[in-house]
Amino acid sequence: MENYPQTELDIENAASFLGISAQRMQELMERRVLVPNWNEYQHLFRFEHKALHIDIGSVLVQKNDDFSLILGFPKIKRAMLLGPAIKFNFCDIKRVAVEEKMNGYNVRVILLDGKLAALTRSGHVCPYSSEKANDLLDHSFFTENPQLVVYGEMVGPDNPYVPKEIYGIESLELFVFDIRHKDTGLPLPLYERRELAEKYGFRQVRLFGEFDIQEAPSMITDIIREIGRKGHEGVVIKDPKMVLQPMKYTASQSNCSDLQHAMKVYNESGRDFIFSRIVREGFQSVEWDESEKDFRKRCLQLGESILRPMKESIIKVRDGGRVAEEFTIRVKDRATISKFEEYMRRLGMDIVFSEPKTVGNEYLVHMTKVNKSTSDKTLAMWEGQLWS
Amino acid sequence: MENYPQTELDIENAASFLGISAQRMQELMERRVLVPNWNEYQHLFRFEHKALHIDIGSVLVQKNDDFSLILGFPKIKRAMLLGPAIKFNFCDIKRVAVEEKMNGYNVRVILLDGKLAALTRSGHVCPYSSEKANDLLDHSFFTENPQLVVYGEMVGPDNPYVPKEIYGIESLELFVFDIRHKDTGLPLPLYERRELAEKYGFRQVRLFGEFDIQEAPSMITDIIREIGRKGHEGVVIKDPKMVLQPMKYTASQSNCSDLQHAMKVYNESGRDFIFSRIVREGFQSVEWDESEKDFRKRCLQLGESILRPMKESIIKVRDGGRVAEEFTIRVKDRATISKFEEYMRRLGMDIVFSEPKTVGNEYLVHMTKVNKSTSDKTLAMWEGQLWS
Repeated sequence: MENYPQTELDIENAASFLGISAQRMQELMERRVLVPNWNEYQHLFRFEHKALHIDIGSVLVQKNDDFSLILGFPKIKRAMLLGPAIKFNFCDIKRVAVEEKMNGYNVRVILLDGKLAALTRSGHVCPYSSEKANDLLDHSFFTENPQLVVYGEMVGPDNPYVPKEIYGIESLELFVFDIRHKDTGLPLPLYERRELAEKYGFRQVRLFGEFDIQEAPSMITDIIREIGRKGHEGVVIKDPKMVLQPMKYTASQSNCSDLQHAMKVYNESGRDFIFSRIVREGFQSVEWDESEKDFRKRCLQLGESILRPMKESIIKVRDGGRVAEEFTIRVKDRATISKFEEYMRRLGMDIVFSEPKTVGNEYLVHMTKVNKSTSDKTLAMWEGQLWS
Repeated sequence: MENYPQTELDIENAASFLGISAQRMQELMERRVLVPNWNEYQHLFRFEHKALHIDIGSVLVQKNDDFSLILGFPKIKRAMLLGPAIKFNFCDIKRVAVEEKMNGYNVRVILLDGKLAALTRSGHVCPYSSEKANDLLDHSFFTENPQLVVYGEMVGPDNPYVPKEIYGIESLELFVFDIRHKDTGLPLPLYERRELAEKYGFRQVRLFGEFDIQEAPSMITDIIREIGRKGHEGVVIKDPKMVLQPMKYTASQSNCSDLQHAMKVYNESGRDFIFSRIVREGFQSVEWDESEKDFRKRCLQLGESILRPMKESIIKVRDGGRVAEEFTIRVKDRATISKFEEYMRRLGMDIVFSEPKTVGNEYLVHMTKVNKSTSDKTLAMWEGQLWS
């Protein structure tokens, strides 16, 4: 590992940039609201808590005497009942645009010291995502638009967080869904953003179209059914001007797929994660005014999504195995592997990396993350311990 | 309402009874670990937190210079995998006894100032349960065994907590499942307890029998299947001597019935409550080594138990209704109604009581508890608000 010089935050100037007193700035550092990143990224300070109306995951970048603020991912609220939600939330505009919500992980990309850096949702610089971003995105966008940040979804099977085969992607691609200004976080209007992304050859999330508010619920319902059939996730419904807050809505198949994953590793899954997926099914079933036959089909699908993966984990442990998740990453620069390994370790992830395998001009690495909590709890049950 | 004289805890003597310093006793009162009950029960102090190795819900009774301690309900742990759990937990004994676990609410009954008082799980004196206990239990048990406490399940339809028709009970009955000594909480051995209860004509939970450890898992599995068919809850497996800790195990139908209730009032149900019922289904399915057909049947049942009641609540609110639970109570003494009304109010329950209706020599009262959180959240969704 290389040694990187430690960077101190310039309290006075940072405070002045954020419009607060130096004392308040000092406090934010001491209370670890603002925390520096590692290695060559020690001049990036991420918000680990919300403060000064700045969301968690936002990143303050210090460059000599210059500061910039990369705002976090705005939380997109969810429609439970599509019709009422569209009517109520977009009552001030005539038309909404519908883009695909893809199933991957979010990154924000900026130019940093001559290279692209990909910030995760929490504000860490992911070495793997950064290599990919450098490969996938035209750098001239960033030199020509130094005030803009690219918000996108990293999607595909070579994915250390959310590996998915559903999009027919060979390795990993970045799909842009937002471009925002530094410091203010203000988004470009939808069509302006799509044109700009197009100009630089960026891949973008699919635009299904623009619909009148009146026809939107039924059109989007059709889109969601189609998305469900393909096993994709859902949509984000947006004000084309990006003034009103967008909303998301997902297919039943995506809720069930989330549940399948959660129940495989049942003892480490959040109860709220599971609950929220279940609740979505109840509302969709009512809004879609299903026949008894379709309702029972939905019930069976829900039940199977919950029980089948759990059953498989219990059997796996009974037969001497451990519950684990498998990932692959694929890199051009061999150094990225060890950087990513260190990064995972620093995040407290206990992951076993395979020896790199050469595939073309790239290295393929398999990663295994044992789900210790689920494995141990299941084994304890087989040994006869009581639940609680 | 009558006025009752306030009772102060005699700190010195209480401390000496519990074997602690007066200062520590004072602290427990000030930190509200020990809290006095209301009205004529101000000399009953319930443990609202665990302290001095005494469980929550335990009650310290002060009578002149005399003290006694009514210990709480010992938490019975749950077997997830019946076979391994029996083998591991009862390896030191040859045979286990199996009693029915009924679906009602727990009370502890003691003689207090000449009348029976029924303490709930939390250590409150429930006026309704107390009237019932006075009616159902032979008082001579308590005068002849002043050192014993009766632990039982209040079961039946006239039930302000867990109304169930499943046992063919007309109103409400008390089924004894434990008799314990005051102060120490030590239980009577199983057969001694059953004989004593029998002698005083108490109704008791069903004893399915005693089984060799080797045959117990398969015998109990058969019992559980039968219990499930009848819609009953489950069993408690006990060391006949009551030395080893007992364990409980429930039928799938009971888990599903719990889920039905929880999802009807989905926004006030604990996520952990829902999660734990789901997890039980996964383990039972594996242990029972089900066919694919039976497994799919279980999945459908689980899915329906979750979605159908939720769907009904959403439709009810769409059509202008509110999600609510209905209860009835049936009393001989009209004064019990207003006492119970006051009791519910003091516990923070928002319940509407109907006018009492005379039925034979008793009064029947209907109670409606509106589930405000679920009703409001569901209405907000119909109005187009976003989930979060």
